[in-house]
Amino acid sequence: MAFDRLIKRIDELHNPSVAGLDPRLEYVPQFIQDASFVKLGHTLEAAADAILQFNKALIDALYDVVPAIKPQAAYYEMYGWAGVRTLAETIRYAQSKGMFVMTDGKRNDIGATMTAYATAHLGKVDVDGVELEPFGADALTVNGYLGTDGIQPLLDVCEKYDKGIFVLAKTSNPSSGELQDRLIDGKPVYEIMGEMCENWGSRQIGAYGYSAVGAVVGATYPEQLAELRKKLPHTLFLVPGYGAQGGGAQGVAGAFDENGRGAIVNSSRAIMCAWKKEENCPETAFAEAARREAIRMRDDITAYL
Amino acid sequence: MAFDRLIKRIDELHNPSVAGLDPRLEYVPQFIQDASFVKLGHTLEAAADAILQFNKALIDALYDVVPAIKPQAAYYEMYGWAGVRTLAETIRYAQSKGMFVMTDGKRNDIGATMTAYATAHLGKVDVDGVELEPFGADALTVNGYLGTDGIQPLLDVCEKYDKGIFVLAKTSNPSSGELQDRLIDGKPVYEIMGEMCENWGSRQIGAYGYSAVGAVVGATYPEQLAELRKKLPHTLFLVPGYGAQGGGAQGVAGAFDENGRGAIVNSSRAIMCAWKKEENCPETAFAEAARREAIRMRDDITAYL
Repeated sequence: MAFDRLIKRIDELHNPSVAGLDPRLEYVPQFIQDASFVKLGHTLEAAADAILQFNKALIDALYDVVPAIKPQAAYYEMYGWAGVRTLAETIRYAQSKGMFVMTDGKRNDIGATMTAYATAHLGKVDVDGVELEPFGADALTVNGYLGTDGIQPLLDVCEKYDKGIFVLAKTSNPSSGELQDRLIDGKPVYEIMGEMCENWGSRQIGAYGYSAVGAVVGATYPEQLAELRKKLPHTLFLVPGYGAQGGGAQGVAGAFDENGRGAIVNSSRAIMCAWKKEENCPETAFAEAARREAIRMRDDITAYL
Repeated sequence: MAFDRLIKRIDELHNPSVAGLDPRLEYVPQFIQDASFVKLGHTLEAAADAILQFNKALIDALYDVVPAIKPQAAYYEMYGWAGVRTLAETIRYAQSKGMFVMTDGKRNDIGATMTAYATAHLGKVDVDGVELEPFGADALTVNGYLGTDGIQPLLDVCEKYDKGIFVLAKTSNPSSGELQDRLIDGKPVYEIMGEMCENWGSRQIGAYGYSAVGAVVGATYPEQLAELRKKLPHTLFLVPGYGAQGGGAQGVAGAFDENGRGAIVNSSRAIMCAWKKEENCPETAFAEAARREAIRMRDDITAYL
């Protein structure tokens, strides 16, 4: 089961966190950008090339500290098809270093179209009898607004290729409550979505008691996080919003079960841009700075477990 | 205003429909596939190349009948970064023929990440002082589950670059009701989402009375379609589910206002695969078959207006 692999790696590294790779070009040190501009001019291909070099150096610095990366698809699409090629190459590079890769795409659609997304990001596509892997991540974030028709195709692909999904339940943003906190028969929408996750995951429960269907629950709502942890015993949580968005380690503690498992906490900018925050850090030391921040975050979170 | 351009083109062609370009490789005639395999082997690049040739021929056959195309991102992502390059090239080719392009991506995220999606699909990205257009569609479908934080960045990009969005309200699939029909204070979720669309769009109302924020409302729920048309007077509807999913032209009629405007109806497979359905249609005549089906659909829908 895909999340068994993830939890095993979390245990080995004693680190329930994931490095979000959401690379705006501005985050990439100038010397890397310049090398790409010299090669490829001021093009989307150059931006994508610079980001790939940046990502690979970060992965080299992080893979024995952090069990997983979470590339955010939006930042790759922002650099066009070349950016999307960098996404594919980043996924393969991280996996070659033993990291678990969850593509943050929040994809959603129905039936055959959702199967196409599942195939794209987690499965293999048939090209005239030859099976090819378009992106090959280990897990994908998805949006459950369309109901079971939008999730079932994912479950089939997860089962066939040993992959997992995280469904948005309670997101970390300030206006998440506009819909997600509204009550349906006395229950908030995010809880109903969480219950759907338990239900969708019931067919594929792994060795640690967690299913192949996780949920995204923001660090910025510690009460809902703790409440959902109790109500959704088989649902692994992907927790965004730690650090930059204001969620602290203490608030995140409620996401974990009594064995210190059941959640993985994301940090993106704080790790990627650590070199900009550290005093007197030369830009050439960006990867070491990222590693230091990842270790600081690990120690910050595990102190509460 | 982006949707003024679309409505003007709909009026000119007397055709409120859009051709969905959701190209599985199996839909592409074998002679096109074979030419790509000879050039590029059995690779994702070959599949993407075959799909691009297919799309271009369809666009050539449709552009003076159908005002718009709606490429579904999932089917391009399914062929990896090369497939995504085909998406970008399809968008540019259709626009060069005067077609309005709405990318069906159902994207959703928050804050800076949603800005990245908006920039990717509708705007321009800054690469070290040079502004480049990653995909450049005219409109994008999005999912509003995350609330205003997930929509505001789109509105800013729409205003700056004269683009539009369609927010999922009531989708065409059987299980759409699991969440969308549930009642919040006596109102179904899809209606609340529709009201949010009216609200988000209120800043950018065009010459025909429709805003830059449309809604996706499925043809398979004619009652909700007619009901929402009355309740959301400034919201243009993108209506999927006609034909293949079981929605008929009569049911779709309720999506239009008293001037026969206010909606655009999608058909994907029926147009793309018309050559497979027509009796004795040689595969080389696939584009003419698509044109015949597009004309049949136009006449079918406009008969009820």
